[in-house]
Amino acid sequence: MMKYTDDSLMLHTDLYQINMAETYWEDNMHNRRAVFEVFFRKLPFSNGYGVFAGLERIVEYLQNFSFTESDIEYLRDELGYREDYLEYLKGVRFTGNVRSMVEGELVFANEPILRIEAPLAEAQLVETALLNIVNYQTLIATKASRIKHVVGEQSAMEFGTRRAHEMDAAIWGTRAAYIGGFDATSNVRAGKMFGIPVAGTHAHALVQAYRDEYTAFHKYARRHKDCVFLVDTYDTLKSGVPNAIKVAKELGDKINFKGIRLDSGDLAYLSKKARKMLDEAGFTETKIIASNDLDENTIINLKSQGARIDSWGIGTKLITAYDQAALGAVYKLVSIEDENGKMQDTIKISGNPEKVTTPGIKKVYRIINTLNHKSEGDYIALEDENPGEEKRLKMFHPVHTFVSKFVTNFEAKDLHLDIFADGKLVYELPELQDIQQYAASNMEVLWDEYKRTMHPEEYPVDLSEACWENKMRNIEEVKTKVKEMIEEGNN
Amino acid sequence: MMKYTDDSLMLHTDLYQINMAETYWEDNMHNRRAVFEVFFRKLPFSNGYGVFAGLERIVEYLQNFSFTESDIEYLRDELGYREDYLEYLKGVRFTGNVRSMVEGELVFANEPILRIEAPLAEAQLVETALLNIVNYQTLIATKASRIKHVVGEQSAMEFGTRRAHEMDAAIWGTRAAYIGGFDATSNVRAGKMFGIPVAGTHAHALVQAYRDEYTAFHKYARRHKDCVFLVDTYDTLKSGVPNAIKVAKELGDKINFKGIRLDSGDLAYLSKKARKMLDEAGFTETKIIASNDLDENTIINLKSQGARIDSWGIGTKLITAYDQAALGAVYKLVSIEDENGKMQDTIKISGNPEKVTTPGIKKVYRIINTLNHKSEGDYIALEDENPGEEKRLKMFHPVHTFVSKFVTNFEAKDLHLDIFADGKLVYELPELQDIQQYAASNMEVLWDEYKRTMHPEEYPVDLSEACWENKMRNIEEVKTKVKEMIEEGNN
Repeated sequence: MMKYTDDSLMLHTDLYQINMAETYWEDNMHNRRAVFEVFFRKLPFSNGYGVFAGLERIVEYLQNFSFTESDIEYLRDELGYREDYLEYLKGVRFTGNVRSMVEGELVFANEPILRIEAPLAEAQLVETALLNIVNYQTLIATKASRIKHVVGEQSAMEFGTRRAHEMDAAIWGTRAAYIGGFDATSNVRAGKMFGIPVAGTHAHALVQAYRDEYTAFHKYARRHKDCVFLVDTYDTLKSGVPNAIKVAKELGDKINFKGIRLDSGDLAYLSKKARKMLDEAGFTETKIIASNDLDENTIINLKSQGARIDSWGIGTKLITAYDQAALGAVYKLVSIEDENGKMQDTIKISGNPEKVTTPGIKKVYRIINTLNHKSEGDYIALEDENPGEEKRLKMFHPVHTFVSKFVTNFEAKDLHLDIFADGKLVYELPELQDIQQYAASNMEVLWDEYKRTMHPEEYPVDLSEACWENKMRNIEEVKTKVKEMIEEGNN
Repeated sequence: MMKYTDDSLMLHTDLYQINMAETYWEDNMHNRRAVFEVFFRKLPFSNGYGVFAGLERIVEYLQNFSFTESDIEYLRDELGYREDYLEYLKGVRFTGNVRSMVEGELVFANEPILRIEAPLAEAQLVETALLNIVNYQTLIATKASRIKHVVGEQSAMEFGTRRAHEMDAAIWGTRAAYIGGFDATSNVRAGKMFGIPVAGTHAHALVQAYRDEYTAFHKYARRHKDCVFLVDTYDTLKSGVPNAIKVAKELGDKINFKGIRLDSGDLAYLSKKARKMLDEAGFTETKIIASNDLDENTIINLKSQGARIDSWGIGTKLITAYDQAALGAVYKLVSIEDENGKMQDTIKISGNPEKVTTPGIKKVYRIINTLNHKSEGDYIALEDENPGEEKRLKMFHPVHTFVSKFVTNFEAKDLHLDIFADGKLVYELPELQDIQQYAASNMEVLWDEYKRTMHPEEYPVDLSEACWENKMRNIEEVKTKVKEMIEEGNN
């Protein structure tokens, strides 16, 4: 079927990146230093915070950043790029610097998650893949964190592979869910690749294959000592639960009757009835696991009804981020070297005010109150500022500038780490378990008001005065330029 | 980072499949013939039809259906499966039969898209991956078809990679979009892999890098004779369009001023104004391309406002199927060999009546009226029926059975082809262009009433009388069995 049998991720990009890189190269601009930032403009799900995920995949992508022979062949034969430019592309590697938040970091709107400083053409060529990775993985880590927040100490399991958007989403989505606090996945490949605990028992097909639950449960239990029986193939309360209890009684100590799973019907009602039946039969330790299109809202609702559910299997709504299936992170040029080797800040203006970018090479700090160890907000400053040295930090809203406060007794934590320096990986990727732990620990610095799933308070993400003034100056410059152009056009 | 460096798709499955296969194997049931069907219960987007996609990926998956050494190692070392079962797994290949609709086929709720007939354990092990593939690709092909239906003869381009759910979704989603009628994609890798036409020009970054549009457009045009200029970096009508016109006038015949792209703001207003400016400057052939969170609804709306847009770039809303991010196809056992080698139909009952499955080995026919070449509906019959031989076919609603009609002068088209026979591929995968063509030709047999994007008529998917009666008989049998069990429990 396919003309080119190898596959590489180098062409996993929008065509215009390759066109722009060509223009830069032809104009000998391609090696000018350029700084791009990745950020999103709005938190997903109206959530009060985001959880960043995707860095490990980005590291892998940048380390293998090299066109294959068949990539070049395709660009030549099918898209008609010329030989001189292709010669240049053949030698392209990622040689830049990457500063980034680490996975599991709390992230908010309009703050730089990643900062790429690289030769212009390289920085341009990596855009699409980076956004593809960050947008999806961060979306799912955030959704998972919302759900886990509601699930609490109980167990949350990712069950969504069959509804995921193809295979990568199942795998990387599961990893993101684990970062967001999930306890296990049903996807065995994700278990193998990432060491995530794997969970699952049997499906309706087993019961159908044996034509009755009694036989199916017995057969299943022969080889699986830790038994969770799915009880809704025919009739949960009349057939499923009684058969599970019957088999468990017959097998006694030969099995651990760990649980039953409910996968349809009125989960509140069924779980209460089933709990009663299990308790009366003496199986007070047997857990009830629920699944069936669950998300944070249905879980809150079920809990408010007193549902006796101990463990939650979450599929579609998590892995597809069903209620908001996309995060809109963008990749914007904030500074570029001019013909004299000097960095010049750059801005994108838009008819939509929220789409105007913030120019300049920036850092983002979390301002932690040293008295209560809670965060006062995030503070975006220009590269050469050092807010940690201020005695009294002025924080003000970047749009409603009169909304301001002064913070004392604080620590300013730089949220970016060096990941690549001159194209070399200088960061040791942490274990996934440690990332999950880090994400959980981050939640501690947030006031509860930012964590609730409905109408959370808006977490402050402020600009330093220097950063804000730089932005205003850039806006004025562009406006003047456009005005001059119009006047010129009228003459 | 990763303990197992190779990756294989064999473990791209839910854990319970491996557990169930183990139970079957231990009980020597694993080689019993079993028939599973893939179907969904509800069309996505309230659309009147679905477009099937995913078969090519399924073929590839089944052809490589073999556990790797590291898969086995993981199952042993981390999940504790025993050696005897692992020995069996090592030898597992897909040896079954697959009958399936072809890609580009119109598909409706509750009809078998694919039918897997295989040794029980094999059929069980392939479930998760098959659903993962069918659900996503069919969802996107259907969404693309909806959008293309509204776009009509104009050009529809897939621009969604950065918002896709990780990389596979971008690639296979683009392919599905092409099947659904899209004309091109921005994803270069999809172009390389599948031969899809690739489109794209430049982004805001180019303008920012040169700090003004005039310079950027000039530089871009040096190497790209077919020019489409993005005109909204600073101010569309005051700066972008005038600069594009100025550059085009200066360069004259040296370029083809193919178009401008609008990516923000009021697309209806801007496109009309820009059209006027282009026409007045003599560029009547220059097209206007629009992008910015478009979908079928915004396109209808823009067209109704008289927007002068010639070409549509569709990103997020298509590639994530934003308004309904999951299709719920399921995989259900419909028949299984008993201990005497006889096939026995099987059913899954549920508290939700729409979740009750239809037992039996079935075929699905499209009933085409030979007088007007339009479809009268789909007709699901048992394997040994032959509706094509009927003079007068009775079609009735499977729930509201009094809704019925008799059809004469018809052709009954079997919608399934043999794809695998005894594990061997017996189907030649068509070229993607031919699949797109086939999907388009299928639309011809549908009355317009099924194709509109809002409140389409419900297309009939009927059961044969034999099939319906078989279902009722199976329901009765289960009910009797449950009743007996309850009585037994009470004694």
